[in-house]
Amino acid sequence: MNIQNKIFWRDQPHIENIGDKISIVGAGMVGMSVAVSMLGTGVTKNLVLVDAFGDKVKGEVLDLQHGALFLKHPRIQGGNDFSATQGSKLCIITAGVRQEPGESRLSLAQRNADIMAKLVPELVKHSPDTMILMVGNPCDVMTYVAWKASGLPSHKVMGAGTTLDTQRFKVALSRKFNLNPANIHAWIIGEHGDNSIALWSSVNIGGIRIQQINSKFGTDEDPENWMELHKDVIGAAQAIQELKGYTNWGVGMSVAAMAKALITNKLTIYPVSVNAKGRYGIEEDIFIPLPSVLGSNGITDVVHLNLNERELTDLQNTAKLLKQVQDTIKIKGKEIKCKCRRCK
Amino acid sequence: MNIQNKIFWRDQPHIENIGDKISIVGAGMVGMSVAVSMLGTGVTKNLVLVDAFGDKVKGEVLDLQHGALFLKHPRIQGGNDFSATQGSKLCIITAGVRQEPGESRLSLAQRNADIMAKLVPELVKHSPDTMILMVGNPCDVMTYVAWKASGLPSHKVMGAGTTLDTQRFKVALSRKFNLNPANIHAWIIGEHGDNSIALWSSVNIGGIRIQQINSKFGTDEDPENWMELHKDVIGAAQAIQELKGYTNWGVGMSVAAMAKALITNKLTIYPVSVNAKGRYGIEEDIFIPLPSVLGSNGITDVVHLNLNERELTDLQNTAKLLKQVQDTIKIKGKEIKCKCRRCK
Amino acid sequence: MNIQNKIFWRDQPHIENIGDKISIVGAGMVGMSVAVSMLGTGVTKNLVLVDAFGDKVKGEVLDLQHGALFLKHPRIQGGNDFSATQGSKLCIITAGVRQEPGESRLSLAQRNADIMAKLVPELVKHSPDTMILMVGNPCDVMTYVAWKASGLPSHKVMGAGTTLDTQRFKVALSRKFNLNPANIHAWIIGEHGDNSIALWSSVNIGGIRIQQINSKFGTDEDPENWMELHKDVIGAAQAIQELKGYTNWGVGMSVAAMAKALITNKLTIYPVSVNAKGRYGIEEDIFIPLPSVLGSNGITDVVHLNLNERELTDLQNTAKLLKQVQDTIKIKGKEIKCKCRRCK
Amino acid sequence: MNIQNKIFWRDQPHIENIGDKISIVGAGMVGMSVAVSMLGTGVTKNLVLVDAFGDKVKGEVLDLQHGALFLKHPRIQGGNDFSATQGSKLCIITAGVRQEPGESRLSLAQRNADIMAKLVPELVKHSPDTMILMVGNPCDVMTYVAWKASGLPSHKVMGAGTTLDTQRFKVALSRKFNLNPANIHAWIIGEHGDNSIALWSSVNIGGIRIQQINSKFGTDEDPENWMELHKDVIGAAQAIQELKGYTNWGVGMSVAAMAKALITNKLTIYPVSVNAKGRYGIEEDIFIPLPSVLGSNGITDVVHLNLNERELTDLQNTAKLLKQVQDTIKIKGKEIKCKCRRCK
Repeated sequence: MNIQNKIFWRDQPHIENIGDKISIVGAGMVGMSVAVSMLGTGVTKNLVLVDAFGDKVKGEVLDLQHGALFLKHPRIQGGNDFSATQGSKLCIITAGVRQEPGESRLSLAQRNADIMAKLVPELVKHSPDTMILMVGNPCDVMTYVAWKASGLPSHKVMGAGTTLDTQRFKVALSRKFNLNPANIHAWIIGEHGDNSIALWSSVNIGGIRIQQINSKFGTDEDPENWMELHKDVIGAAQAIQELKGYTNWGVGMSVAAMAKALITNKLTIYPVSVNAKGRYGIEEDIFIPLPSVLGSNGITDVVHLNLNERELTDLQNTAKLLKQVQDTIKIKGKEIKCKCRRCK
Repeated sequence: MNIQNKIFWRDQPHIENIGDKISIVGAGMVGMSVAVSMLGTGVTKNLVLVDAFGDKVKGEVLDLQHGALFLKHPRIQGGNDFSATQGSKLCIITAGVRQEPGESRLSLAQRNADIMAKLVPELVKHSPDTMILMVGNPCDVMTYVAWKASGLPSHKVMGAGTTLDTQRFKVALSRKFNLNPANIHAWIIGEHGDNSIALWSSVNIGGIRIQQINSKFGTDEDPENWMELHKDVIGAAQAIQELKGYTNWGVGMSVAAMAKALITNKLTIYPVSVNAKGRYGIEEDIFIPLPSVLGSNGITDVVHLNLNERELTDLQNTAKLLKQVQDTIKIKGKEIKCKCRRCK
Repeated sequence: MNIQNKIFWRDQPHIENIGDKISIVGAGMVGMSVAVSMLGTGVTKNLVLVDAFGDKVKGEVLDLQHGALFLKHPRIQGGNDFSATQGSKLCIITAGVRQEPGESRLSLAQRNADIMAKLVPELVKHSPDTMILMVGNPCDVMTYVAWKASGLPSHKVMGAGTTLDTQRFKVALSRKFNLNPANIHAWIIGEHGDNSIALWSSVNIGGIRIQQINSKFGTDEDPENWMELHKDVIGAAQAIQELKGYTNWGVGMSVAAMAKALITNKLTIYPVSVNAKGRYGIEEDIFIPLPSVLGSNGITDVVHLNLNERELTDLQNTAKLLKQVQDTIKIKGKEIKCKCRRCK
Repeated sequence: MNIQNKIFWRDQPHIENIGDKISIVGAGMVGMSVAVSMLGTGVTKNLVLVDAFGDKVKGEVLDLQHGALFLKHPRIQGGNDFSATQGSKLCIITAGVRQEPGESRLSLAQRNADIMAKLVPELVKHSPDTMILMVGNPCDVMTYVAWKASGLPSHKVMGAGTTLDTQRFKVALSRKFNLNPANIHAWIIGEHGDNSIALWSSVNIGGIRIQQINSKFGTDEDPENWMELHKDVIGAAQAIQELKGYTNWGVGMSVAAMAKALITNKLTIYPVSVNAKGRYGIEEDIFIPLPSVLGSNGITDVVHLNLNERELTDLQNTAKLLKQVQDTIKIKGKEIKCKCRRCK
């Protein structure tokens, strides 16, 4: 009789119920930051890491498991075999290649689209009811690609969008006002990156809409030059990359927050990339970051913001640009129609 | 068009998935302390309170809901209708009457048994797969009654047992050693209350079994008189009752911890009341507090402690006493055989 | 050699540094709910309870200590001797008598003012640098009394104000919009209780100011009749009292949140009772609930809201009513001038 | 008047009290994992990162700050100037070079000792009352060097020791017993790395000392061959390094736990590197991992374990080896005598 049998009367099987499974595809700097942020904030106790580089991901899994004692005993698995993702409730995609020197943005988009076209159907095969949260870049276009490649209804496929941009914006404002960011409300929408649109008309601090006090706030004519803050936000990723080579913590923590909203049905609003068809005069399937309600069946609502004329024009122009990229990219594999309630 | 429809494009239904439902029967001081402790430590976001006094429980539910903003938005329901407990994963029973002046312990046991015989089948009717955690007194006997009345396999029915007694013992030891209670390991077993058995042979502090250093530790011959600590533990409930009229916080927090182990499949050990048949020479269905592993299918293992002769005798004597009470009590309703793997 | 000396080489003294001390005056239903909420959310590990009824408070302290194992090992002390509060960083006052049948509100105010006039100087004697958070009723007037009796600068004395009212308002709105209360921004100001003012003009949901969409929102002409929600908020306390006899959980959790902001210097905004002199045309020392920034030196900022004409009139009328009560009440003991930066 | 002045009446200065400052020296993979683990588990809200590479650390600080919204608003600073560490309560040293191919262990130790001899006095200059937690390798020897270079009493200087080794051991045991690691008690002591000593005699699971059941448990004669688990623990770091190139998560989380014990005066036991003089027959200043009590004045107690003969011999042999390395290394700068209570 082995020791286990000597110290326990073990009558019942230990079942494997440890909550909703979340899979992360890509165990690089961003994927691991997402993993650690999710474990740290208790988003899941049932985590799977998948990466093409089997050794890397096995090393990461071992390393995380050794911290398990301090992480309330989660189950962490991983490897290069997608079958471990079986039955996921949420798949977070951080995989993809980086831009080569001299490579055009379109070429990068096509190379990553090829990767998504391959791995997304694998994920959906093992988890036909999963939600997908895209973190790979260019984020908004890749969300479109993932939707097309998945065959899932569009409310179950979303991108990280401008959640991190919005977060950076709020942190910058919170410093200027010496106030907790929790009391600062603002949105950046439109595209994750250079063409993001700061909705100055929505900035509300402690219950005060700032443009009610200073109608030029955030505009070109603003003598206090608040629009600089938005430029800092746009430049933040590149600034960090020049300093340390990559960004990971900010994105990891914001993805963990969105994952928590999805998994625990929080019904909180984040500016994620969603199918904008039918909103703000956009009439085609284009994935754009818009404030939306996240719950355990994906995107339930898209917030209908009161945009001013300039903001609306900016948004529609961004939509056109994104559409052009979407149309240029070739997605291998069968294209499937959206199955969401709205489209059926 | 109402405002909700103006500010949202709402395409998908909001589903009601907010995690495993836990029901508390009895919204008195203990039940509410359990509720608040579970909400505060994130055991559940899906809580139901049931009480015979409908007004009381409705008031408690409203009051708790107003704290929801600070409690991460749980769903809290309640009333005097058991149908709200439908589909519970765990039912915690804190209901029962208190001892009248001059009333015998046996009379109290019978009165509470009558209550359990009525409410337990109601619970199981609405949640046939539930686990039951008994907090009502006398706890060990009521756990037996709940098992009989439920028809559930015995590994799914347990009592709070000596978890609170053990906790009080550790806190007392931690003061004497000026050490965090997390580094103090000890068990009290046998019965919640006057006949509890402190297992001095199991006391381990920082990796040191104390009886290895001082073989008289905790015995009658101990010149340092450590056994006083156990007497304090036995007298704790009465001491608090004399001071404030009832006890609720200690029991509430310990029940919340056990509930967390059950709901999140933690596989941690607590000295809960379990069916002791087949352990330590006990050959009948008697519910006794013994260190056991708690997971999401109930009690998976009972720890096989290395009791010394005196501890074993004490345990068997306590078992006999509990059996006598069990046999005297009349349980209304059909008696059903245990359906656990071991008994089948 | 005793056991402690056998199992440890103890070279250094254990110091008593366990963080900022918080004292609660009054160990009744509200005080204990504040205590449990603060322990549960990690506001402090150094808690003192003081109550005129020494037995009651000793029982509560013992009961809480037995939960210490699950509360990360806080130090909890208490009794009827104010010297235990020595060196508090924050004193929370929940003491006071309840309204007798037939008693006028003014009579109640005078009776509680007499209590405050006695206990506040005791607190300040032992903790000359403390902040004071008043929870006793009538809250706004008692905050004024505590300020006068304390001799502290007015930015260190505040009342719970309309934080709970605001919280109830947000929870009610969150249900109507099926949205997490974290995305709902609104203020109730003016007075805790019947004369509270709901600032419908400030209601912002997901970045949308609702009155921009429906200018009648919350007004008498509103066909959707949203103002009913405010009436429910005003009636909430009484509704709960009629059902369960008292309210405690909602207030306990909101006080714990304010205490956390004060102790950890969060710089978050709550509508606490503050000295309104110099704001909104109020020219006297009147304590009124206004959104204010809470940090570790008390109230650093009062938010300058954009009130519409009606809201401003309502606020000034409420101020007059509060002033009348303040003036009628007799505060025993020497009155001391405010020592805050603004007044000096 | 700028916007800030328009939306606030700002009367009081915002003070900078956000709790005990912790500084991390070294913003590499380990340092950043420590930082993220400490922010995630709320160890500190006042974090300073210092690194010789100013750009790297500035990038990390920016990246972390963007996650601040989800991290409860901590203050995070950093750069290559040690003056930012001014007034630290705890300094965690993760700096140091890695072993070059073909480099002897002694050569590595000397190179890192040179680094410590330079940076430790810088830290102590700015924070004369700091505690030091050494994470650099070879950890035990570097702790000795840091003590010598610091001039601090030895109870304020400690190394990460075998905390991670112990954690890996518990996680491995928890899998074998299918039990939460919280119920598994065991120690690895003696040296972080190849010469670590697993104290099989101390292994206690659920209150059962395993060697009482199977006296061969963990020995060479054990037919169940449990000692393999210790070999896995010894090989874990190298295994992970071969797979992913470095280890960071396990060490980061264990260092965060120790930092929490120190900063919040938890009085919990970890096997940290401490000055072993006077314990277990060791008569010289040698830093060895031994289970010790961590509180806010550093090491208050060293646990006096009941080692069996073999374990004691192993420990004394390890001490000799560590002494040889200590003696060979040259520490630049003045050597200062220990100022602890015991040595004075």
